[in-house]
Amino acid sequence: MTLRDLPTPFLTVDLDAVSRNIARMQRYCDEHGIALRPHVKTHKMPRIAELQARAGARGITCQKLGEAEVMAEHGFDDILITFPLVGVGKPERLAALAGGARVTVGADSDVVARRLSTSLVEYGSSAGFLVDCDTGFGRTGVQEPGDAADLAELVVELPGLEFAGLMTHPVLPASGAWLHEARRLTEARGLAVPRVSGGGSAGAFEIHESGEFTELRAGTYVYGDRRLAAQGVMALADCALRVVTTVVSRPARDRAIIDAGSKTLTSDVPLGLDDGAFGLVVEYPDAVLHRLSEEHGTVDVSACRRPPEIGEVVTVVPNHACGAVNLHDEIALHRGGGDVEIARILARGLVR
Amino acid sequence: MTLRDLPTPFLTVDLDAVSRNIARMQRYCDEHGIALRPHVKTHKMPRIAELQARAGARGITCQKLGEAEVMAEHGFDDILITFPLVGVGKPERLAALAGGARVTVGADSDVVARRLSTSLVEYGSSAGFLVDCDTGFGRTGVQEPGDAADLAELVVELPGLEFAGLMTHPVLPASGAWLHEARRLTEARGLAVPRVSGGGSAGAFEIHESGEFTELRAGTYVYGDRRLAAQGVMALADCALRVVTTVVSRPARDRAIIDAGSKTLTSDVPLGLDDGAFGLVVEYPDAVLHRLSEEHGTVDVSACRRPPEIGEVVTVVPNHACGAVNLHDEIALHRGGGDVEIARILARGLVR
Repeated sequence: MTLRDLPTPFLTVDLDAVSRNIARMQRYCDEHGIALRPHVKTHKMPRIAELQARAGARGITCQKLGEAEVMAEHGFDDILITFPLVGVGKPERLAALAGGARVTVGADSDVVARRLSTSLVEYGSSAGFLVDCDTGFGRTGVQEPGDAADLAELVVELPGLEFAGLMTHPVLPASGAWLHEARRLTEARGLAVPRVSGGGSAGAFEIHESGEFTELRAGTYVYGDRRLAAQGVMALADCALRVVTTVVSRPARDRAIIDAGSKTLTSDVPLGLDDGAFGLVVEYPDAVLHRLSEEHGTVDVSACRRPPEIGEVVTVVPNHACGAVNLHDEIALHRGGGDVEIARILARGLVR
Repeated sequence: MTLRDLPTPFLTVDLDAVSRNIARMQRYCDEHGIALRPHVKTHKMPRIAELQARAGARGITCQKLGEAEVMAEHGFDDILITFPLVGVGKPERLAALAGGARVTVGADSDVVARRLSTSLVEYGSSAGFLVDCDTGFGRTGVQEPGDAADLAELVVELPGLEFAGLMTHPVLPASGAWLHEARRLTEARGLAVPRVSGGGSAGAFEIHESGEFTELRAGTYVYGDRRLAAQGVMALADCALRVVTTVVSRPARDRAIIDAGSKTLTSDVPLGLDDGAFGLVVEYPDAVLHRLSEEHGTVDVSACRRPPEIGEVVTVVPNHACGAVNLHDEIALHRGGGDVEIARILARGLVR
């Protein structure tokens, strides 16, 4: 089966481009002495994580326990979970997971640290703990460098937890100085800060500049998407993830409807890409995919000299790779075109 | 197991509210002599479609073939597919499906009609055909009433297809007059127009006003969502679909982070609900869920007198029920609280 034989819409990934993307990011990290811990939330597949490990990645990052459990079942034994594990069953599942793999968690409160400690002790297991720092994004994370030192000091005292350092997401211009101060204050209390971890693909290739980070957690770089291409982080040719879709209606000269909507491409509007388009139609760069319904993509083709016809297959680079991948049970793997192999996306939809 | 025992985030639906919603819409349609053909894209579950059928629905609506195939496997034998069936395998699958059920399709072009006719003849089956009309939304559909009559005339001549009438989505103020003219022109050519079908829950309770529609295709009314509540179409108490989620971080006085993000709630921004919020936190009506990451929901709790604490479980009514349901493999069914039963969402993710 080739790409042209796929029923549409179908999510596809070019493993040749994936290999280039993995090699490039690993080379960058190696050059700067930064450990690369890929975020699996982009691909959600043990198989792609293995390619990253073979290239030199040190461990993996997961966003939820469910993802981590799938990865552990597939032999990954060094897992960072960068989400506060709170709620029914979470501390217990962490403790069970930590019985079979080296697990580190990120969190920003004494409440979470204490509950995890209790469970880990009950299960006789242990986990690393990174203090999550809000260096400007306004999501999770302690608010001041001194708070980071306070939480580090608490974690050191809690049985079952091992203080592993600091983390932030994303890496912003001010993040380096913020974390420098947090590290200074923590070290001033006699604590070692073994790891300073920064997340995100958008700023990945500048993460060495502050001299503060020892680890990079990046996910999207492996597949790429319209956001990273638009921001100049990677070339469009290296965007490995594409949706094969069919033009199903041409109701007017200026309008084409494709069979890929928000259930296929995701309606996520990634940060910094608020131009009103939901993907790039590769074969028609002058077309604008300006509206998504669940199953319909509405494309303005008024600027196309020869607009696509009904039945024509076109290829879309989604705005947000992680969001698109999560929608699909299956993905078609190929190498620069040609034969495809259908693979399951094993860790999709695991929000718990 | 009760709602409070669920690991979070978890999608839940109150079957008592579902029964009220089904009864209300059926009563409205019965009063006005309009056939109700529920759109299953909202719930994606044969089990809920059976409740709709038992209440008096006449057939079901599906958006993609994959949904229709699941419903046919579960005994539904009167299925309308309101999406142009074009591309690899589609006409063949339609023909196979039409061998076992009464199937009607909606489309807007001679290209599609001819291809479907060819396949249906090959398989020795037949399908109804509704001419899809663009009465102002700007998606699929013929552009002028005269075009509708032209396509109807073609369809009547094509073997395997039976002209079944006209359809549009959504029903807008001008839709009735548009379809009246299309029907007049079609009838002037000696063709009967047995059905005039309008889609959408937002304007459902006004669909009788034009006197033009014989059928309503509505989906979201069965579960409700923040959009329909905000538009006054239904009460918040009747919004059956809710996400149970846990507060996992309270990094600042004015901020709470919940474990439900775009992978749980959907980042869909429904038409007419562009107020910057991604869901309603039921227990904290003054809170604003203003940002979604994939797994994080960032809530501004500055207006809450007592903001929720870490570990507290809160309930969110999503903005867009259909989009939220599609993200989940499982849903917790309950009746006004109390015991839950976990059910599979059998037709989720079936974009082909």
